[in-house]
Amino acid sequence: MFQFELQTKDPGSSARAGTITTAHGEIETPIFMPVGTQASVKGVHQHELEEDIKAHIILGNTYHLYLRPGLDVLKSAGGLHEFINWKRPILTDSGGFQVYSLSDTRKINESGVEFKSHIDGSKHFFTPEYAMDVQKVIGADIIMAFDECTPYPCPKDYAKRSMEMTHRWLIRCKEHFNSTEGLYGYEQTLFSIVQGSTYVDLRKRSAEFIAEIDMLGNAIGGLSVGEPAEEMYAMTEVVTDILPEDKPRYLMGVGTPANILECISLGIDMFDCVMPTRNARNGMLFTSEGIINIKNAKWKEDFSALDPNGTSYVDLFYSKAYLRHLMIAGEYLAKQIASIHNLAFYLWLVKEARKHIIAGDFANWKNSMIPKLTTRL
Amino acid sequence: MFQFELQTKDPGSSARAGTITTAHGEIETPIFMPVGTQASVKGVHQHELEEDIKAHIILGNTYHLYLRPGLDVLKSAGGLHEFINWKRPILTDSGGFQVYSLSDTRKINESGVEFKSHIDGSKHFFTPEYAMDVQKVIGADIIMAFDECTPYPCPKDYAKRSMEMTHRWLIRCKEHFNSTEGLYGYEQTLFSIVQGSTYVDLRKRSAEFIAEIDMLGNAIGGLSVGEPAEEMYAMTEVVTDILPEDKPRYLMGVGTPANILECISLGIDMFDCVMPTRNARNGMLFTSEGIINIKNAKWKEDFSALDPNGTSYVDLFYSKAYLRHLMIAGEYLAKQIASIHNLAFYLWLVKEARKHIIAGDFANWKNSMIPKLTTRL
Repeated sequence: MFQFELQTKDPGSSARAGTITTAHGEIETPIFMPVGTQASVKGVHQHELEEDIKAHIILGNTYHLYLRPGLDVLKSAGGLHEFINWKRPILTDSGGFQVYSLSDTRKINESGVEFKSHIDGSKHFFTPEYAMDVQKVIGADIIMAFDECTPYPCPKDYAKRSMEMTHRWLIRCKEHFNSTEGLYGYEQTLFSIVQGSTYVDLRKRSAEFIAEIDMLGNAIGGLSVGEPAEEMYAMTEVVTDILPEDKPRYLMGVGTPANILECISLGIDMFDCVMPTRNARNGMLFTSEGIINIKNAKWKEDFSALDPNGTSYVDLFYSKAYLRHLMIAGEYLAKQIASIHNLAFYLWLVKEARKHIIAGDFANWKNSMIPKLTTRL
Repeated sequence: MFQFELQTKDPGSSARAGTITTAHGEIETPIFMPVGTQASVKGVHQHELEEDIKAHIILGNTYHLYLRPGLDVLKSAGGLHEFINWKRPILTDSGGFQVYSLSDTRKINESGVEFKSHIDGSKHFFTPEYAMDVQKVIGADIIMAFDECTPYPCPKDYAKRSMEMTHRWLIRCKEHFNSTEGLYGYEQTLFSIVQGSTYVDLRKRSAEFIAEIDMLGNAIGGLSVGEPAEEMYAMTEVVTDILPEDKPRYLMGVGTPANILECISLGIDMFDCVMPTRNARNGMLFTSEGIINIKNAKWKEDFSALDPNGTSYVDLFYSKAYLRHLMIAGEYLAKQIASIHNLAFYLWLVKEARKHIIAGDFANWKNSMIPKLTTRL
């Protein structure tokens, strides 16, 4: 059932257009996946994700979902799709990233990771096998291998040992994934993750190992953790040169609109990031003409449409001055409007990228967009 | 232009069905007005108010709007309707209530009230005349006289002196209102307010004075400020017996669903209250079968529709277990869903009341509803 059809390759870059088929429908790539951390994309209704933002797939965080609502509730509900009433595809991370970034204390050894809940301090233990079990209960269409995401900067010997453990964990994930049944009668697909920090030789070794393991999709982890964008691009290029062309490539946790276009040009197909929603809640809007800080006094009496080029209804329905007022007054509606706008913009951006890949002029279009995307309006 | 057509009187109570016509359209009464304190009904998009909640009219708070976004912005926008993009009627209070309840310090004398902003501590002075000017800038279809809202309990001599001042202020409001132009080319209508605390003789005197002044609509203020419901009903009855039948009657700040039905039966036509939205944000849902505290553990694995009898899409789209999870996890979407539900329920309730008034069986229906509305599920 799971399938990746590579449709077009851009002549001027490594950008690709493709289609992923899952049990819950198709995903046109390149794609951006809105992040629904704890069973909700913050401030956004499900029908807004579908109709206004036009999300093809959303992401859930295994660490959060495991702690709350918990596996008992998710299992009784019939999985996350049923629980939140979302018919389209879902991807879950493995929980690894949050274990490292949110848990008060954690102990990593070969068998797995012990961590404390950031909610109530309770102790939990994730192994690669258990991360598969948990993600089978959540029921996402695409699930991720359990890895260690190294911080930036990371000493090379640590990065090497960690990467090697992540590789061994992948074997365990794959074996456990293949030897256990899904719960809900539809197919789930396991993606592997390349690690190796910012070391070219480690990234090469990891990408070669991952290519060898031959999963149906491959991700790049351990980037967008504080390293300069140039390092992120360099590592991405090293890895995409090695990963098989006929499998989707997912760059985890990236990024700004400019990051996304650059990484599409390096051959990435899938992205996720909290930036569009998190920055929206702080008043930062991404548009095709540049970045707006809506709290700025210059918008106080600007009654023009939020984004005349925007594709969601909020862009024409609400004015800049109104959103500025709501943001400064601390109204929930401010976060709601800005979140819909930013997510719709991200989805527009990847759709537009896809069009230009298919038209064969992606590289030129990207180069014309980058200066605009990074302008402060 | 402003018109109140009294259509039906219930044979078994003082309940009435009518239609108010304003420059921004018709309002079928009895009606509940969602509160949009600072230019937004908290957590709810404007199109949701219109399409899902089916609000006929919303309320804005003059005190909040005056402080933020401020009159300069509202005037440049062309008034509140344009600013928030809401085509239907709006009512604004006079600012009096918030001056008393929110301002750190205030000094009341015959000429007006000096108060300090709760936002930045800046000093402001409202007179009855200025409250008219401010509401003309905001541009609501229905605006309220500037009154003093006495607390509960209130010594009788204070209540009497305050009521008399409120009456003198009404004359000043009316004169200033009539002698100044609106800003936006459409008609605004000034409503008077009955005061008199919980003293029958004062309420009678105030209602007689207000009836004499003969505005196009009359409100009852100074209730729902902490007094027992029985006192609220008693005062409402005293007043509605005196107020002219051919003018709409607005009971300010009321109340629970049961309060609303009881006061409809006493001849009230218009209501507003923050309860449906404020309680929604804390997890309390009002339904036709009773009150749900969605945080309760009993809903943890209840995957049934939020409210099978509900009229808004959230009622069937989301489950109780999902809303419980969102509420406990502190997700914005929890507040959004619960707010839409509660407001849609309040609008359903008054619409249903209207149907039963027109059908002539309101009193029986009300008596059958009250026990259900107050049940804890």
